[in-house]
Amino acid sequence: VTEHPTNWLDEIVHQRHRLGILTITADAKQAEFGYLRETLGLTAGNLSRHLTVLEEAGLVEVEKGYKGRRPRTWVRITRLGRAALAAELDVLARLVRKRSSPGHATESDERSPEA
Amino acid sequence: VTEHPTNWLDEIVHQRHRLGILTITADAKQAEFGYLRETLGLTAGNLSRHLTVLEEAGLVEVEKGYKGRRPRTWVRITRLGRAALAAELDVLARLVRKRSSPGHATESDERSPEA
Repeated sequence: VTEHPTNWLDEIVHQRHRLGILTITADAKQAEFGYLRETLGLTAGNLSRHLTVLEEAGLVEVEKGYKGRRPRTWVRITRLGRAALAAELDVLARLVRKRSSPGHATESDERSPEA
Repeated sequence: VTEHPTNWLDEIVHQRHRLGILTITADAKQAEFGYLRETLGLTAGNLSRHLTVLEEAGLVEVEKGYKGRRPRTWVRITRLGRAALAAELDVLARLVRKRSSPGHATESDERSPEA
């Protein structure tokens, strides 16, 4: 009964900032915390909260390290994260394609349970 | 500085159930409350809350009426709603295209502010 593509979206992945984190980290070996913060226009606290959600779901790994003498926090997408992002993008591609070939709505066209 | 496509997503439209409501109502003259509830797998309370958010943003209109003797609630997308949905789908199309032509991530590829 719940056939609409948006039912298949996972809110952990779909939230726009987390979708941003996953698409950036999917495209590089690892991304630095400060880079993500600037690119996504987030506060440090906000980015940290989204990273925690993603890390607890097993979609990214967060690692503290150094670049020269400066402490750095690195974020990497996991295999599970890549799979979750691929699933999300599959649904988004369906929604985008649906737009390109819309239904034939007419003046009398209604969506109701009895229709 | 905040160049990532996900920065352009509007959370009112991007939330998955509201995206569902807008895509369904964009494709028909009007949709009945019960049809939306069943198709999106929502409780009545949850659907009502999402409709209130969309209505307050001017993206849908909600109208009580009758079908025969039965009371019915109809939902229609507004012109502003169509524009907001189109903007959302434009960003989603960019994200989907990005996947088709990913960057050339190598073993040494890192994203950091100094890079």
